Amino acid sequence: MDCIFCKIANGETNCHKIYEDDKAMAFLDISDDFEGHTLVVPKKHIANFNESSNCQITHLIKVAKQISQHYVDLGYEGTNIVINNGEAAEQSVHHLHIHVIPRRKGDGKLYMPLHSRGTDLQKLAKKLRIK
Amino acid sequence: MDCIFCKIANGETNCHKIYEDDKAMAFLDISDDFEGHTLVVPKKHIANFNESSNCQITHLIKVAKQISQHYVDLGYEGTNIVINNGEAAEQSVHHLHIHVIPRRKGDGKLYMPLHSRGTDLQKLAKKLRIK
Repeated sequence: MDCIFCKIANGETNCHKIYEDDKAMAFLDISDDFEGHTLVVPKKHIANFNESSNCQITHLIKVAKQISQHYVDLGYEGTNIVINNGEAAEQSVHHLHIHVIPRRKGDGKLYMPLHSRGTDLQKLAKKLRIK
Repeated sequence: MDCIFCKIANGETNCHKIYEDDKAMAFLDISDDFEGHTLVVPKKHIANFNESSNCQITHLIKVAKQISQHYVDLGYEGTNIVINNGEAAEQSVHHLHIHVIPRRKGDGKLYMPLHSRGTDLQKLAKKLRIK
């Protein structure tokens, strides 16, 4: 499979490595949009969040937390933890990855300014509720 | 403590509930920016991601995945899973919460357009690496 994160995980393609264990790797996102923007990926190919097993996703979130704590220890003031699950959700590489984005006050904005849609939330919650 | 998510978790304040178990709750975000924007919170007060235990965060990510799968089953095409960890990372309520944002193609953009900063990534990775 021609997957860039599989190639990184198996050593075929170089990366700017931050962390590695037997099941996961973390490396700098080459977008270089926020300083230290990091991606945590499973070594085994998993297309997206919904396709991960509980065992796989819990390992990855623990790695993301370790990296997040390490970055705050190094002097960053916070982190964003982001998973885009599917193309409609702006996922660009279809190998599951958790973004860990170190942040400092005044370093910009990650999110678009968004506005209320005027939804009837009571009606919507009834439709979406897990029984 | 005057925490709005504690008040929701203990039933003092109403919410548009999506899910509940003994340790977590999920309800619609009142920002109503994306249809079905949901927050998953621990019932116990935890300020942010870095302060959560592995046991706490792994439970919450499993709940987020269950909700994410439920939303895709209902016809949404993807989801964003987002944790803002600290004020510098745009966290507004200081009680840990995982955003689960159902998405459809063409429903807008969650993220700002961002650009490369021209960082020397090799040098930066050396500084940030977990030994």
